[in-house]
Amino acid sequence: MNGQPGVSVAVTDRGFSYGDGLFETLRFDAGRPLLLERHLQRLQHGLERLLIPADGLLDLLRDELAMLCRPHPGGLLKILVTRGEGGRGYWGKVDRGPTRVVQRFASPDYPRQWFEQGVELFPCQTRLGLNPRLAGIKHLNRLEQILARSEWQDQYPEGVVCDLEGYVVEGTMSNLFMVKNGALYTPKLDRCGVAGVVRAVIIDSANKAGIDCHETRIRQDQLAQADALFMTNTGFGVLPVKRLGEQNYPSHPYTAMAREWLEEARRCEC
Amino acid sequence: MNGQPGVSVAVTDRGFSYGDGLFETLRFDAGRPLLLERHLQRLQHGLERLLIPADGLLDLLRDELAMLCRPHPGGLLKILVTRGEGGRGYWGKVDRGPTRVVQRFASPDYPRQWFEQGVELFPCQTRLGLNPRLAGIKHLNRLEQILARSEWQDQYPEGVVCDLEGYVVEGTMSNLFMVKNGALYTPKLDRCGVAGVVRAVIIDSANKAGIDCHETRIRQDQLAQADALFMTNTGFGVLPVKRLGEQNYPSHPYTAMAREWLEEARRCEC
Repeated sequence: MNGQPGVSVAVTDRGFSYGDGLFETLRFDAGRPLLLERHLQRLQHGLERLLIPADGLLDLLRDELAMLCRPHPGGLLKILVTRGEGGRGYWGKVDRGPTRVVQRFASPDYPRQWFEQGVELFPCQTRLGLNPRLAGIKHLNRLEQILARSEWQDQYPEGVVCDLEGYVVEGTMSNLFMVKNGALYTPKLDRCGVAGVVRAVIIDSANKAGIDCHETRIRQDQLAQADALFMTNTGFGVLPVKRLGEQNYPSHPYTAMAREWLEEARRCEC
Repeated sequence: MNGQPGVSVAVTDRGFSYGDGLFETLRFDAGRPLLLERHLQRLQHGLERLLIPADGLLDLLRDELAMLCRPHPGGLLKILVTRGEGGRGYWGKVDRGPTRVVQRFASPDYPRQWFEQGVELFPCQTRLGLNPRLAGIKHLNRLEQILARSEWQDQYPEGVVCDLEGYVVEGTMSNLFMVKNGALYTPKLDRCGVAGVVRAVIIDSANKAGIDCHETRIRQDQLAQADALFMTNTGFGVLPVKRLGEQNYPSHPYTAMAREWLEEARRCEC
């Protein structure tokens, strides 16, 4: 909490009052945060989009994350940055800001069979609203994701969410890729959704490998006709999908390839 | 803070992590919260919409608000309710919840000339996204309002915001009414916007008085051709508009009537 140990935040913090901030979730391994610069770049981009001044913030975060993960073999790190503490009202005048929080969590324990056999996804009824101004960034206004995730209990590792017009957008906490005729497709996130760091790694790696990867609108009937699907996020990396709704999907070599791309990017920090 | 004095909240509170909650701002006068039951009903409706279980919460809030305002002549009260404290992730399992915060603020000091001469509104460029699932309720995901309010400094008391399709929706912190040919019009808030308590009072009172009051989509060119405009919120009540963009608006008897309706509703608590 702003460089000090702490478990609480001011009730006047704009993160608490309005969700006025951003967050990042990172993996770390052998005391090293993975894909750190990509995460910090996304955070920086989000700060600019939300007009939150944050001079010197990334350097402080680099130091604090290093301290937090150094004595531990591996796990997750969370960064949360808000505009700061301020009075009542939407105008972003703050008495002190930004507020930064870094937290360490144990690695989630994903069942091995998820990766070997693929997972079944829950088809969420909750629709993501259309909001180009906030699309793509990992801000703290996450009621849509909470409502989508509330639709099922523990039976599914993840669900798929569509937008107001019925286009497929993402999982509740991950991004979606579709394989079709040797090309990759992932929903365009210009109107809603969170542009994941692993998603960006897959897009960049596909481009380098000469595999077409399109960011585009994907209809539900197009998804049903895909050759394969996989989901990406920082926690589970690349997760093959075996079923969604009435549709079964086979395993596909591109899913294993995407996992290798992610491992390579984590090794070379690129 | 949950019935105890306090200035801080757990960093794991879902209000801080995700804006996972609701708020209300009330006026109080002579130690009595005004339009209390209307505010609590709106809060209850929001809790249901967000699937936040809150048995007995309203009774606790009634008691705490009464305690908070009893020794003071007048001012503002703020209620903030979140789903509670919980772990990482969107799923709404909470260790303890809901979290409730009540705060007292001094009355804002509005210049008398605002009410006598009307105010000029700032035409915001920020567009409200379309999201029927969250429309109308006073939830804690307020980045849109923050970005809209960031477009000007102190020169205007309020701005007007349109939705993604260009329809007029509301102010950044208030609702909008338009007078045209003897009828009242206010934007329909089924896709975005916050359905204010004072707005509801005006609609109900107009219906009782036999004056047509339509909740409808309002285009910007229709707004420009209005006979008069006024804004409503808990803080300033009913505020006449004298100018927006290139358009000047005269004073109109309906604005004074709306103010009387509000005063009457505050007196009789209806």
